[in-house]
Amino acid sequence: MTVKLKCTISYDGSEFSGFQLQPYGRTVQGEIEKALRKLHKGTEIKIIASGRTDAGVHAAGQVIHFETNLAIPNQKWPAALNSLLPEDIALLNVQPAPEDFHARFQVKKKEYRYHVSLSPVRNVYNRKYAFSYPYQLDIDSMRKAAALMEGTHDFTSFCSIKTAVENRIRTIYSFQLVEEGSMLYFHVTGSGFLYNMVRIMVGTLLEVGRKKIFPEDIPRILEARNRAESGRTVPGHGLYLWKVSYDN
Amino acid sequence: MTVKLKCTISYDGSEFSGFQLQPYGRTVQGEIEKALRKLHKGTEIKIIASGRTDAGVHAAGQVIHFETNLAIPNQKWPAALNSLLPEDIALLNVQPAPEDFHARFQVKKKEYRYHVSLSPVRNVYNRKYAFSYPYQLDIDSMRKAAALMEGTHDFTSFCSIKTAVENRIRTIYSFQLVEEGSMLYFHVTGSGFLYNMVRIMVGTLLEVGRKKIFPEDIPRILEARNRAESGRTVPGHGLYLWKVSYDN
Repeated sequence: MTVKLKCTISYDGSEFSGFQLQPYGRTVQGEIEKALRKLHKGTEIKIIASGRTDAGVHAAGQVIHFETNLAIPNQKWPAALNSLLPEDIALLNVQPAPEDFHARFQVKKKEYRYHVSLSPVRNVYNRKYAFSYPYQLDIDSMRKAAALMEGTHDFTSFCSIKTAVENRIRTIYSFQLVEEGSMLYFHVTGSGFLYNMVRIMVGTLLEVGRKKIFPEDIPRILEARNRAESGRTVPGHGLYLWKVSYDN
Repeated sequence: MTVKLKCTISYDGSEFSGFQLQPYGRTVQGEIEKALRKLHKGTEIKIIASGRTDAGVHAAGQVIHFETNLAIPNQKWPAALNSLLPEDIALLNVQPAPEDFHARFQVKKKEYRYHVSLSPVRNVYNRKYAFSYPYQLDIDSMRKAAALMEGTHDFTSFCSIKTAVENRIRTIYSFQLVEEGSMLYFHVTGSGFLYNMVRIMVGTLLEVGRKKIFPEDIPRILEARNRAESGRTVPGHGLYLWKVSYDN
């Protein structure tokens, strides 16, 4: 009997050319499908994710689905698959999903986090897990600017010019900054995100922190619908796909 | 004018074949001496460390010394050298040292830490920075056993059979276990450590945690002066040379 499974996975993006299968380069999808093929004695199993992530981008709670005819109890799945997966991918949990479940089309909410190290001396262990930005920042102004990004807007100014989709209206439910020692964490939750959107929003907020852009500029930047108006795109290695939510 | 400098450095051991220069393989010493040679316009500068560390072993506070005729103010040294060093080594601080200072021969005390992840699901980001040991442990018994390792003993049972030095008497000043979430940290400070000594002590304590060895066995194991009596050597990637202390 074939069942559909919804799985939460985590990965360290450092050594991947991104999530999506490619003819060349090691990918998260490629490694998971390889492990699933072994577990299914050579039968090819296709996985569908909530969305792709770029090279270097990490995931604490990416969601995928796939179909299987193996009769493995749900709680045994992580140990079974993790023993076949490379060390930089972990299957965290598995739940049965209704037949019509779709990991990409039914996403209701996504949370991304972005990790920045403000330490003047580089933290050698963190170099692939946080963006090093050793500057004094005006965090209050950054919080004001982040609050102005919340709500429903056309985010054309905050996505890559390579963005293919026409409709760039998205809703940001919450955009928080959390300070902890010399680390600064950005937590952003929204209905969905355009290509490079989190990385451009964070890059813009860092420039607000250095007083190159001001909170009161944010409404004007949104209004402009022009990528040239916002800040730089920060690197992928500080970014984490944190949580993907569905209706149930 | 030539001056002697005492430097504290940090490195991520993951991509090194250890500290010490080797004909093949990337080493911490090799990378630092390469950066120093650039800074000194091609003049070779030799560094001396408090001790070598093995492949995969990290350092939060390794100490080195070298001599230079460059007139760089001490507080400018980190930025000057870090710009030439690879991202997995950081020069943290530089102090002038007396002419007779020696980073290896004058060590008074060393602290090592060992990081263990007890989480049943692997933490993908931590895989090069902590040893994954997903078992239930009796931490109280481990603490009792650690306390019995404190003091001055012949540590022949707790060093590699490859150890070359004759005198295996060392003093452990303190051996603490710190729990934090699913992490278990070992903090051990001593007069000096034999080859693989921290990794064998920690491996023995983990077996105490699983009730394969008991705290009351520790005096007998020390007495035996026989490597076969103690526990397994845990992997290098959980180990950190944390702090090296000198008389002043």
